[in-house]
Amino acid sequence: MIAVDWGTSSLRVYRLDEAGRITDQRDLSIGLLACRGRFEAVLAELITGWDAEELIVMAGMVGSRNGWQEVPYATCPAGADEIAAGMVQLPAPGLPGRRIFIAPGLAWPGSADHHTPEVMRGEETQLLGLLDLLPGDGIHTVCLPGTHSKWATVQGGRITGFRTAMTGEVYAVLRQHSILGAQMTTPEPAASASAAADAGSNAAFDLGLATSRSTGGLLNHLFSVRARHLFGELPGAAESADYLSGLLIGHELQGLLAPDNSLTQQVHLIGSSTLMQRYQHALHSLGISAKVHTEGLVTRGLFALARRCGAG
Amino acid sequence: MIAVDWGTSSLRVYRLDEAGRITDQRDLSIGLLACRGRFEAVLAELITGWDAEELIVMAGMVGSRNGWQEVPYATCPAGADEIAAGMVQLPAPGLPGRRIFIAPGLAWPGSADHHTPEVMRGEETQLLGLLDLLPGDGIHTVCLPGTHSKWATVQGGRITGFRTAMTGEVYAVLRQHSILGAQMTTPEPAASASAAADAGSNAAFDLGLATSRSTGGLLNHLFSVRARHLFGELPGAAESADYLSGLLIGHELQGLLAPDNSLTQQVHLIGSSTLMQRYQHALHSLGISAKVHTEGLVTRGLFALARRCGAG
Repeated sequence: MIAVDWGTSSLRVYRLDEAGRITDQRDLSIGLLACRGRFEAVLAELITGWDAEELIVMAGMVGSRNGWQEVPYATCPAGADEIAAGMVQLPAPGLPGRRIFIAPGLAWPGSADHHTPEVMRGEETQLLGLLDLLPGDGIHTVCLPGTHSKWATVQGGRITGFRTAMTGEVYAVLRQHSILGAQMTTPEPAASASAAADAGSNAAFDLGLATSRSTGGLLNHLFSVRARHLFGELPGAAESADYLSGLLIGHELQGLLAPDNSLTQQVHLIGSSTLMQRYQHALHSLGISAKVHTEGLVTRGLFALARRCGAG
Repeated sequence: MIAVDWGTSSLRVYRLDEAGRITDQRDLSIGLLACRGRFEAVLAELITGWDAEELIVMAGMVGSRNGWQEVPYATCPAGADEIAAGMVQLPAPGLPGRRIFIAPGLAWPGSADHHTPEVMRGEETQLLGLLDLLPGDGIHTVCLPGTHSKWATVQGGRITGFRTAMTGEVYAVLRQHSILGAQMTTPEPAASASAAADAGSNAAFDLGLATSRSTGGLLNHLFSVRARHLFGELPGAAESADYLSGLLIGHELQGLLAPDNSLTQQVHLIGSSTLMQRYQHALHSLGISAKVHTEGLVTRGLFALARRCGAG
């Protein structure tokens, strides 16, 4: 089969053997917006030569309103069976001899005391991939840090609910467009490179984490990026950026671990960026252990879905 | 005397009689950045013809590092006496026959349990103006909503401490530069105009306020702007913007009223924009009364400072 992870800004295709192992992979930094309307042609070109595979399973924003075809969300609680049941087969005359499916994203209407809807498209394949690896009993907490971090609760082989935090996007937007950005522009690029290498272990990040636990709330704490700089507590661009990162990650954890903070002893982190070190460090500072999962979850999840549409 | 309120984006001058009443006023939308280095000339031109007044007292970002001359912050607790003691007289050969002072901003190192520094430049004159009107006994809570909202505690004629919330700036930056902005662009400008007229009373704003009180934290709640839109709960641009406004103001109140929320029965709001209605409504929904003060506080505060440098 061919597994396709097609998001807003990138397209990745994987050729999998009958055991679900990756035998080849290709990618393009052509997301949905860049190839609008030409989905079939872009995909056909990228998988040229992979002729033996009949089945193609896609996930991600390709199934959104602005994608190839909108596929309605599956609803939590959902495991591989429920998500597979929501897959939609596409007519694709430009791809003869293939059967093409788009997996649904996942929605959650919220808990009884917090009735706010949640959605994801793409992350559910990684969660499905992880489900395969976790013991079936117990309640597991999973976090996928990023532009829009996802926090999911997993129980009995199904995703029972999840929450999103716009941590990465808020960080980028404040850094690029707010008054706080001015103190984060560094004349020498080397400074931020060394800061990245040092990720998760520096004092400014820790000060941000500690401040996130004080009173005042995030909107107040954000101003402290500026005030601490004025008083020399965050002298350089890297310190200011690390402090902001600590503040935001600290608030994300506080908001999304609560009210079960005391119940959560381990968080499964999914991802491969240096950000994982920061989340791991932040979790440790709350007395919570973190296990990082990096490789192969997307294809594992898409393979699990493919097995369920084998009969076509 | 002449009272001068000189901020980052605007310059206002007031001619006051001996009782502190405004007899004339002028303004320019020339802030600090626009007239860099030409402070004296810009001011001289704007007060042309006001020749009888010898004393000029200025406040605002004009006393910051990027202003005419940096004036060190006065420190809380501070009333008119302490702030006046920190004023700096400027040499101004281009303004013969005048005595020119810049008032210091105000700093607060934070409380014992939340040692985060705070600063303001300009708002302290409005607070001084209000001090004149408040009874000397009791503890008063004052809020100046805006780009960077200021929350001050006032006791015994002095400002004992304050906090900043970047509510207005975060609102603007998210609206203009984040993924949330797309659903807030309206083809017909009429929609947002009517939303402004309706400020503080609409259902979307109230839904934002209510959501701000649920679990998850601000970074999570921000994503609900998008998720609710996807599910048709925030169909139009105005609803999305009002909901975001409710979320942010709700979080500001939660963060800065706490932990004394139960002790605060009244908040003094300073300002004249339609934003005041929103804050008033949000405070009412928490069972807190709000008294809005709009006129003349800046000149009242600057006049109080002027009286204290009468001897030169």
